[in-house]
Order: sequence, then C-alpha cells, then structure tokens
Amino acid sequence: MSKLQEKILSMVADDLADIEKIILENLDPYLNIVKQTAEHIFLSGGKRLRPLLVTLCARLCGDNKELGKRFSAIFEYLHTATLLHDDLVDGATKRRGKDAANTIWGNSTAVLVGDFLLAKSLEIATEAENIEIIKIVAKITREMAEGEIFQLLKKGDKDLSVDEYMMIIKGKTGVLIEGSCRTGALIAKAEKKHEDALIKYGFNMGMAFQMADDLLDYTANTANLGKKTGADLREGKLTLPVIIARKNAKGTDLLFIDKIIEKREFSSKEFEQFVSLLEKYKGIEYTTKCILNHIDKAKKALDIFENNKPKKILMLIADYVFERKH
Amino acid sequence: MSKLQEKILSMVADDLADIEKIILENLDPYLNIVKQTAEHIFLSGGKRLRPLLVTLCARLCGDNKELGKRFSAIFEYLHTATLLHDDLVDGATKRRGKDAANTIWGNSTAVLVGDFLLAKSLEIATEAENIEIIKIVAKITREMAEGEIFQLLKKGDKDLSVDEYMMIIKGKTGVLIEGSCRTGALIAKAEKKHEDALIKYGFNMGMAFQMADDLLDYTANTANLGKKTGADLREGKLTLPVIIARKNAKGTDLLFIDKIIEKREFSSKEFEQFVSLLEKYKGIEYTTKCILNHIDKAKKALDIFENNKPKKILMLIADYVFERKH
Repeated sequence: MSKLQEKILSMVADDLADIEKIILENLDPYLNIVKQTAEHIFLSGGKRLRPLLVTLCARLCGDNKELGKRFSAIFEYLHTATLLHDDLVDGATKRRGKDAANTIWGNSTAVLVGDFLLAKSLEIATEAENIEIIKIVAKITREMAEGEIFQLLKKGDKDLSVDEYMMIIKGKTGVLIEGSCRTGALIAKAEKKHEDALIKYGFNMGMAFQMADDLLDYTANTANLGKKTGADLREGKLTLPVIIARKNAKGTDLLFIDKIIEKREFSSKEFEQFVSLLEKYKGIEYTTKCILNHIDKAKKALDIFENNKPKKILMLIADYVFERKH
Repeated sequence: MSKLQEKILSMVADDLADIEKIILENLDPYLNIVKQTAEHIFLSGGKRLRPLLVTLCARLCGDNKELGKRFSAIFEYLHTATLLHDDLVDGATKRRGKDAANTIWGNSTAVLVGDFLLAKSLEIATEAENIEIIKIVAKITREMAEGEIFQLLKKGDKDLSVDEYMMIIKGKTGVLIEGSCRTGALIAKAEKKHEDALIKYGFNMGMAFQMADDLLDYTANTANLGKKTGADLREGKLTLPVIIARKNAKGTDLLFIDKIIEKREFSSKEFEQFVSLLEKYKGIEYTTKCILNHIDKAKKALDIFENNKPKKILMLIADYVFERKH
C-alpha cells in the first residue's frame, strides 16, 4: 500500500466502516442465494469509491446529518448490479481475484441478482424522497446499458476511434461517478454552482479512473491486478494506450500490433513485446497525460469550496487515481 | 377470436392505437440494435394488458386528461424488460410464436437491452413527478427478481407446494398487474378506498391471468399458444394443475406423472396421457375453480365504483381472462 493510500484510508476509516455496515444492512433479501451472491461480490474487496464520494461530497456541501452516508448505498448497489451483468456479458471468470459470480452460480442467477440489486438501489433512493435523485439513477442505468451495448458492438474493431473510446468509458464509469458526486450535492441541498462543480469533479474523476484501470491492464503485474494482465486484449476491447499506439505505429510494428489484436491470444513474450510497442508509440505516455489532465480538471473544480477536511480528502483521492495508474 | 374478445377490442381500439404510439415514441435509443431488439419484442403481438389497465383504472378514478395513458408505457417497458431477462434465464427459444431475442441476438444483448428498458421505464415514471409511483416500480422489480430466483431454485422440484406456487406466480405476474392498476389510481389522485379497490382488482386479475396461462400450457393447441404445449413441463416448472393432480394421484398413475416430470421429455402420446391424468385427478378442474375465484374477487372489488364505460371494460377484461383458460 502506498503512503498516499495509507493517508487516505486513515482519514476515512470511520466512514468506510459505517459504509460497510450500511451496505450489508440494506441487503435484507428473503432468499439465501441472493444474500450469498450479493455478499460474494460486496465482500470481495471493492474500494467503496462511489459511496465514499457521495458521503464526502454531501459533507462538503454542508450535510451535517450524515444523510450522504445513509444514501451512499444507492451507488454501491447500482455499481454491483452492473458488475454482475457486465461480467456475464464479457464472459469474465474472475472479479477482484475471486471467481466471478456468473461462473459460480451461473448466468441466470447473475442476471436476476443484478436485477434485485438494481431494484434495491432504487428502493433506497426513494427513501430520500427526492425525485431528482431517481432521475439521476434512471439516467445512469440507461446510459450504462447503452455504453455496454456500444462496447459489445465494437468488440474486436481495430479501428475504434478515441471519441468512441471516450463514449464507452463515459458510460462504463464516468456517468456513475459523476452521479455519485452530484447526488451528494443534492442530498445536502447544495447551491446550483456547488452541484455543477461536483458534477465536473465526478465526471473527470470517473474518466481518469477508467483510463487508469485500462492502463493498468498493460502496466500492472497480475498479482496486484486481481486478474490476468492483457485481459482487455483477450476480450477484444481496444483501450486508449492501444488506440494511440496503433495511430502512431508503422510497418512491421503495426502488423504485429494488429496480429495480436486479431488473434486475441498470445504468449507472455508476445505480450511483453506488445507492451513495449505501446511504450514506443506513446500509447502509455498519451494515456498518462490524459489521466493527469482529467485529474487536474477534477481538482480545479473544487476551487470554489473552502478548504476543509472533506475537500482535502477529495483532493487526495484524485491524486490516488493518478498514482494508481502504474 | 371470441365474441367477448371482439367486443373488448372494439371498445378499446382507440386506446390501444394510442398506447402503441406511446410505447414506440418513448423508445428513442441512440443505438440501432437496441431499437431492433426492443421492437422485435414490442411488436410481436403482446396484448398490452398492463398499459390498458393503467389507462382504464386512471379513467375510472376520474383521470380526464389521459394521464394514465401517457404513463401506461412504464408497465409495458418493465414487462418487456423482465420478458427479455426471463427468456434468457429459462433458455426459452420462442416468445409469442417468434424466435426469442436471446436466440437471435445472444444473451449479452438480451441482458443489456433488458437493463435499458428497465431504466427507460423508470425515466418515464419520473416524469409523473410522484415518488409513490417510483416506489411501486422499484418494489415490483425487486419482487419479480426474487420470484424468478425462487422459481429457478424450485425448478425440477416435484414437491413444490401450492403455497410456493402461489408465491412464484405472485412475483411473476401478480405484483406487476397489481402495480399497473394501483398506478392508474395514483395518477388520477384517487381516494384511498378506490386505490385499495384497484389493488385488489389488479392482484386477483394477475393471479388469475397467470393461472390461466399455466393451464393453457396443457389445454391449448400449439398453434394458438405461439409455443409448444408442455413447455413448462419441459423446463421443469411445476404449475397448479400438476401440483393438484400429483396430490390426488396414486399407484401407477402417480409413478407415470413423476416419471414425465423427472425426465422432462416425452412423446405426443405420453403428453396426451399426462394431460388425461391431470383431468382424472382434478388438476384442471381445481385450477379452473381457482381462476374463477380470483376473477370473482377482481370483479367484486369494482363494486364501489359507479357503472361507467371504463368499469364495464374492466369487468369484460376479467371475463376474458377466464375465457382464455381453454
């Protein structure tokens, strides 16, 4: 664990402990299999980034009743529901180093427990008695489904453009993290300018977070990642480092990159060579710059808030997203 | 088409035409595949029972602005979303006589377009600016997922009890039809006693409708049903006619029933023999009585309303559900 990570964790330890309790308390299904499946994924080491952001953003906007924390479960439930459905869509076998739910309980259970968690997310949201929050949850759910379908359509497409990639990661991560931060503002009945600032913070954090995740698939070692590196490549998913490297590469290097993309399987040596080409043709460098750019925008969006503890933590979390890239 | 069916259709022809328009207008996805998949199922001859009930129940409660009709799409979207997910769960190949969406576009698309439609259902619901309606939609979604998971767990269980069967069909159909009627009342800002009456009407209609559907799987001919008769038996789903016949059957008859349930495949001759045992051991008769009982309760629930056109149609629809059983 890095020093930055340790520092953040020490500042939010109590919040994370409360969030953990709130997530499990809200579950309460009448069927044991739902509890088992949901807990398998809830307890598999998620970072609780989304509920933490709701809690901190609400507090930053003056929430002194911890309402943000109470409703933070909305976004962990929604996130978990989409993980269950996405793992099925991707045919993923691993999630956070553990067997994916669809491989343990089958596709049917993964679909239905996903639906259950989505419904639960909504039921928790209705308790806030604020129709705006429901609108956010509904819009996020729709945009995530559309993003995932778009990604599915583009699977294996060598010519995926940077714009199309941005559209995919916006649907995949951007809208949910943006919605988490915005909901924090709404729960605290923030002024419009503060709500807008947190939308900006959240959107940029989400984009940076997903880009860092995509970069890690090439730069991490398998043990740290909780799944095999090169997983996106195996699934036919082109991400920013590859899109940029393909644009810059020429001759036999480009042929090699395309060969690996097309056949979707490779030896460790071939993978190393592929990564070295991502470096040679600036795919890694460009993606790193993009992440930094989004992180900068996220942090600048917080300028209008006075310096206090929640703001300090939100700034550190932004730095952590950047640090996470390698 | 029966005379009753013709009579109902002539009375609601304009409403059905409007509902058709409203359903398609609300779709508006940015991806063509979503439109294709959703339209495939929307345009495959659904009866639009749920949106029609919202429209009529709202009108019965004094909705003179056709708000019920405007928001009726909520329930067709929710219904279609669950059909997409349920067909995947059941491994169904046919839906209303056409290929099921999961067999045409694959499981991934079926899951994600289902999620899209669920989200759309919610987005339409938020336009009514009434948090009670969202609470209904969220609760229905959760209960349907739980019901479907319970059915999955009980697949192939010869000893499924009548109570367990009732729990399954409540989740499968009861809560959605109940919710459609209740939402009609809420949209029209009905008095509590009228809302309660329509909850009762809807619940009993839903239960009767599903029982009639389950009965048809043994009594219809394949051409009318739009899928092969005996489909439930092939999928290992025990329904009321079988549960009752098993309770009453003895000796070699019981052995034959159990053999067919266990092996899940059978010749036409064996199926005919199976159905004749359902008759011999009162499975058909008992189920018919149950349907009639629920229809009676549904119709009686409308007693508190004055006699007008929407009430007359709701009474006829109740009769139609009963007529539908053979």
